[in-house]
Amino acid sequence: MYCHGNTSALPFFQRPLSKLVTSLNQNVVKIETSSTMTFLEKEVLIKLHKLFFNEINAFYEKCITNNNKTFGCITSGGTVANLTAMWVARNNAFPKTEDFEGIEKEGVISALKYYEYNDMAIVGSELMHYSFRKAADILGLGLNNIYSIPTDSEYKMRTDLLIKKLEELKLKRIKVIALIGIACTTEVGSIDNLEVLAEIAKKYNIFFHVDGAWGGSFIISDKYKYLLKGIEKADSITIDGHKLLYTPMGCGVILFKSPYIASKTIKKVASYIIRENSMDHGKTTLEGSRPANILYLHASLTLLGQHGLSTLLDMAIYNTKYMASLKCNYKIDKQSDPIFKDNLNKNINYYNLSNENNSKLNNSLYSKEENQIISYFTNELQFRQKKYGKGFVSKTTIKSAKYSNCKDGISVFRVVIANPLVTKENIKFVIEEQIKFGLDLEKEKSNFIN
Amino acid sequence: MYCHGNTSALPFFQRPLSKLVTSLNQNVVKIETSSTMTFLEKEVLIKLHKLFFNEINAFYEKCITNNNKTFGCITSGGTVANLTAMWVARNNAFPKTEDFEGIEKEGVISALKYYEYNDMAIVGSELMHYSFRKAADILGLGLNNIYSIPTDSEYKMRTDLLIKKLEELKLKRIKVIALIGIACTTEVGSIDNLEVLAEIAKKYNIFFHVDGAWGGSFIISDKYKYLLKGIEKADSITIDGHKLLYTPMGCGVILFKSPYIASKTIKKVASYIIRENSMDHGKTTLEGSRPANILYLHASLTLLGQHGLSTLLDMAIYNTKYMASLKCNYKIDKQSDPIFKDNLNKNINYYNLSNENNSKLNNSLYSKEENQIISYFTNELQFRQKKYGKGFVSKTTIKSAKYSNCKDGISVFRVVIANPLVTKENIKFVIEEQIKFGLDLEKEKSNFIN
Repeated sequence: MYCHGNTSALPFFQRPLSKLVTSLNQNVVKIETSSTMTFLEKEVLIKLHKLFFNEINAFYEKCITNNNKTFGCITSGGTVANLTAMWVARNNAFPKTEDFEGIEKEGVISALKYYEYNDMAIVGSELMHYSFRKAADILGLGLNNIYSIPTDSEYKMRTDLLIKKLEELKLKRIKVIALIGIACTTEVGSIDNLEVLAEIAKKYNIFFHVDGAWGGSFIISDKYKYLLKGIEKADSITIDGHKLLYTPMGCGVILFKSPYIASKTIKKVASYIIRENSMDHGKTTLEGSRPANILYLHASLTLLGQHGLSTLLDMAIYNTKYMASLKCNYKIDKQSDPIFKDNLNKNINYYNLSNENNSKLNNSLYSKEENQIISYFTNELQFRQKKYGKGFVSKTTIKSAKYSNCKDGISVFRVVIANPLVTKENIKFVIEEQIKFGLDLEKEKSNFIN
Repeated sequence: MYCHGNTSALPFFQRPLSKLVTSLNQNVVKIETSSTMTFLEKEVLIKLHKLFFNEINAFYEKCITNNNKTFGCITSGGTVANLTAMWVARNNAFPKTEDFEGIEKEGVISALKYYEYNDMAIVGSELMHYSFRKAADILGLGLNNIYSIPTDSEYKMRTDLLIKKLEELKLKRIKVIALIGIACTTEVGSIDNLEVLAEIAKKYNIFFHVDGAWGGSFIISDKYKYLLKGIEKADSITIDGHKLLYTPMGCGVILFKSPYIASKTIKKVASYIIRENSMDHGKTTLEGSRPANILYLHASLTLLGQHGLSTLLDMAIYNTKYMASLKCNYKIDKQSDPIFKDNLNKNINYYNLSNENNSKLNNSLYSKEENQIISYFTNELQFRQKKYGKGFVSKTTIKSAKYSNCKDGISVFRVVIANPLVTKENIKFVIEEQIKFGLDLEKEKSNFIN
């Protein structure tokens, strides 16, 4: 069994569908090469828009026939979705006026000069996905202009520090093009307080983007969607089909609250491919030619349906809770498990020390040496299990909360159990194998902790 | 029969392969989720690098085990490939020094201030693909900082005007981040004089990128590769698997001459996914999670092989020549056909007037009225054939050469016959159907030309 990343077993229908997608080989960039797929994309985008933003039906009816309204784009993944959102946000921050053509035409240098700003920035929590660093580089802000706000003990952005930073940037005449809310973080599965972030974004007149690549799909779950409260106030939302909507790799989605914003900020046309008044979706996508991956997403949403997907998501949480309880039984580490603080966590993070070493560790703030021990065990254990065992658990580095004594953070295991075929026995097996390797490791290094 | 875009019939093996890709659902971002696909990508990238740049074997042997060397990236398409190239080029233009952290970290504003430039620019011919406009917008240059150099009567960039522009930009302290050579243009299939452009780029110390999304694949054809002469001097090359390498949609490639440049300019790592010294390809890709589309490209290159692909490409040219000859027989328009000037053209551009109207047109420089007639007939004919006929031919707008009397350009048909299943009868059918609709059209509008 493999416990890692976003490579889950897919529903049976995706395989024959992929043969169909390849056989027809449609190109969704324009209506002539896409045919019905353009309409299917629009339909799915409206369905998702309705799930998150829940506008009245008249709103969608009015928009659907207007070729300059865009509910969002299907992208090759979450990174391009986040980059597209930041592109829209940046261009939206420096719009056209009577004597300025807008940043799209005049570029960063002229835009900042015209609006009398010294620089521009993206602000989010320290657990922001690395795609925002790519976006900051690509869009010309530079990595130094990403401001990472520390998180609290539940790995949510500290809004007191956020406000402090926003005030500071205001004084420095640095334009914040976007505030990022995360739902949920790749590392620990925490969700920022979206409701509060939306209010702050509104107060400071900042574009509010929610990176829901991992957790956004829980909007489908009646049981857990309450945890996304406030997401409906976002200006844009990223979700990934290939994470928790059970499509094959290569299916990201960016949704825009306002159906006008993409046309207003990033629209491009070309006489040989996507014309001004056409229905072509290529007018507002970062990518050009694109496969009809929308078919997979449409299939998940209709064949599994809201009920089926909801069941799968609830099952993922159930399995995650089981793994967490198992870890407690084995006394691996009760304290480091964020699952108990927040029900939506699809992640478990833990480190794996055998009982003896574990009991020697202080339960509150760890010392520098203790952090080093935890990291050493995690890294070595992953290596051994991968090489000699049957299981594999991915790992990450966590910096915040009680690991603050370690400036480089500590290594912990990170698990996402989205695969519905995973059984309790599989989970038990992986943990027991880790215990076994952990005990070996301890014997060899019995003098490691003095 | 449909004659349009890049949606060709695919080799039989791509369909079952897509089922395999979907079943395994590997993610090439990192080795743990990609497994062998990371090595397959590296192998294919080296194969393509060797085809274009033809370094000695020792070069590749030395590089293959070094995790910080990158021959290129597989992308979701040509647009992301071109954007990646421009990203590398921009960051390469404003590198790190002792007292400057580089544009990647400090951003556009600081970089231009530090290097004392007023702005930055991309320069290419007026037939540059619209993805460069996207890149100029996204990377912060702005559309006004794309300089489109007029083309000559063969639709190649006028190098005299290029040099004039480069001198002008130098005087204005505008940094040219990249010079674009096209092989071949989307509109008419012409290839810039790459040899000369490479020399000019070298002289002015500018990053030289060749957009070979359409024509780059002809490097495989012994018969036609001579037309790409000079491409080996490019700093980066874009090609599209889903155009002339017969893979399904969603397979672009960017190649870098120097295996150091991507690591030096755009590398990003994250503790939970792509680590510093790993073999993970995600370190230097714009996208994050990616499907194993490399399997399709590898299959084309090995199952069809160089000989098979070469045969398909030669056949495309053969069919294109046949269509061109047919147009001459029908006296549609002998002069507007660039196929006779340049063998590599996979495109035919033509407009379709019935004999009588055609003979009334001046054969050299067309008047404003004549251009309007041509555009009217092309647009109306396409509409009628699509609505009432069985064929469909895409169209574009051409501005240069003898259509200069029409500031908005004229509408012409644009055909790419890459589908090897197309027969002479199919081609004849489409042309004859157009003649039929053209005659109807002329009857109705008999007074159109007075």
